[in-house]
Amino acid sequence: MEVLKRLDEFEKFLNQRAKMVDAALDFYLPRENDYPGKIHQAMRYSTLAGGKRLRPVMVMESAKLFGLPFEKVLPTACGIEMIHTYSLIHDDLPVMDNDDFRRGKPTCHRVFGDAVALLAGDALLTHAFSVIARNSDIDGISPLAVIDVIKRVSKDAGSNGMVGGQTVDIESTGVSIDKETLLYIDRHKTGCMICASLWSGARLAEAPAQDLKVMDDYGEKIGLIFQIVDDILDINGDEKLLGKPTGSDVKNHKNTFPSVLGFQESLEMVEKLSQEAKDLVSRFDNNEFFIQLVDFLQSRSY
Amino acid sequence: MEVLKRLDEFEKFLNQRAKMVDAALDFYLPRENDYPGKIHQAMRYSTLAGGKRLRPVMVMESAKLFGLPFEKVLPTACGIEMIHTYSLIHDDLPVMDNDDFRRGKPTCHRVFGDAVALLAGDALLTHAFSVIARNSDIDGISPLAVIDVIKRVSKDAGSNGMVGGQTVDIESTGVSIDKETLLYIDRHKTGCMICASLWSGARLAEAPAQDLKVMDDYGEKIGLIFQIVDDILDINGDEKLLGKPTGSDVKNHKNTFPSVLGFQESLEMVEKLSQEAKDLVSRFDNNEFFIQLVDFLQSRSY
Repeated sequence: MEVLKRLDEFEKFLNQRAKMVDAALDFYLPRENDYPGKIHQAMRYSTLAGGKRLRPVMVMESAKLFGLPFEKVLPTACGIEMIHTYSLIHDDLPVMDNDDFRRGKPTCHRVFGDAVALLAGDALLTHAFSVIARNSDIDGISPLAVIDVIKRVSKDAGSNGMVGGQTVDIESTGVSIDKETLLYIDRHKTGCMICASLWSGARLAEAPAQDLKVMDDYGEKIGLIFQIVDDILDINGDEKLLGKPTGSDVKNHKNTFPSVLGFQESLEMVEKLSQEAKDLVSRFDNNEFFIQLVDFLQSRSY
Repeated sequence: MEVLKRLDEFEKFLNQRAKMVDAALDFYLPRENDYPGKIHQAMRYSTLAGGKRLRPVMVMESAKLFGLPFEKVLPTACGIEMIHTYSLIHDDLPVMDNDDFRRGKPTCHRVFGDAVALLAGDALLTHAFSVIARNSDIDGISPLAVIDVIKRVSKDAGSNGMVGGQTVDIESTGVSIDKETLLYIDRHKTGCMICASLWSGARLAEAPAQDLKVMDDYGEKIGLIFQIVDDILDINGDEKLLGKPTGSDVKNHKNTFPSVLGFQESLEMVEKLSQEAKDLVSRFDNNEFFIQLVDFLQSRSY
């Protein structure tokens, strides 16, 4: 009961932070009536469609952990969420997963057509770097830290990061793969941008190199927890709560943790990773957020 | 005869610079055998397919005009060429123009499939910002100048720049448009990245604000010259020299300068813009490149 109450409060806290991110995204996105309207409507439609905003909140909390007020990293937090949104728009296109629903709403290409959805994704990815660069306008943020963040985010979003994971994911669709390949896909497709979020917040707060490494390692653990739980939810989750149809992995012949490792091993892996993630951040004071985040991610699978 | 000889030498100079850009692109692109190989092969296939490398050479020459050795801006020059290449890959996709040839070779999606081509475009755009950010590693380049360049390039590549132009271009395909809309499309689809190239080289060389403005204005003129001549060549150019089939604008029901304004007015516009562009850079010493570039771009229509 105590744990459930704590998780309930944590979720309220997350929602509160997510609202702040929503407001900042609204501010940093181009206006809907800016010419040409259609592309800006598409960018806003997909970015402001809700979502837990986990990545931006991770940027903010990681900055706070190292003594920087979280408001100071809002541009980077928003830029990373725009990159996440672009990846979802392109992932949903007919040429990729051909999904019709996302976050409880028709996907971007279902509303705006395939060509505008493609361009809206391109524009969001491009705009993201503009918004991250604007973090240097904020008092107390060093330009070199912003450049480091741009280097890191572009590496983790690119062909050796998120896009690399998507490439292997597509190549493996409908093909039987081993655990190693599955881990590559998920570490890259989901994990890299989670690591980049945690690293970026800490870097903007001028955290020392060894602490940046700890946040990276923590990110890798929770990225995997997140993906394993997501795979499990796609099998036995509640469509209404998820905002998208379940069973899409099976429908799309996707390899998942339950399909490659089985349910039992997947759940044991979540358990083990959760403990390791908590151990990593135990060295920091004021680490409550990062401990509770692990419990929260793990709890989604119950 | 004198002019032709001068143009011939200018073209040799351009080719020489292009080779330098090719070598730098080869260096800054991920290796072909980096895992996952397919995405890196696709990125390299399209980026290293040749081309005049006008945008990167503009970055380099603009830096030189303001006293900075052109080698120092090679990362930014390459990043801008990667953005140009990604835009071509996505533009050629079946969901957009559905073109089969580019620079004399089958288009990216014809070789690697639609999904990998989409991802290769995404990865190139992402990698571009990483490479531009690396310009800050070069001795004598200020981090703030690099951040300004990232802000500028992302603005000009995004929904208020190149992608905005592509959006209106698609919406206008097969529809009769006025001169104002045509100018919007071409100023954004082609012009913005040319302006960004000239501006970025000058900014990295710490050129004063009024000179940055001059390079911007010059860029807008030559961007239009470039596009008008391109439209003319698509009607009466030589397929072998162009490396792509002519007549694709008519086939794709694209609005072009000749179709909206007529041949005569299009040629007169090139003439007028050429004079204005030369007048703009006449205030600078060592402006030969920028004067000859105008003659070169204009001469392609003969």
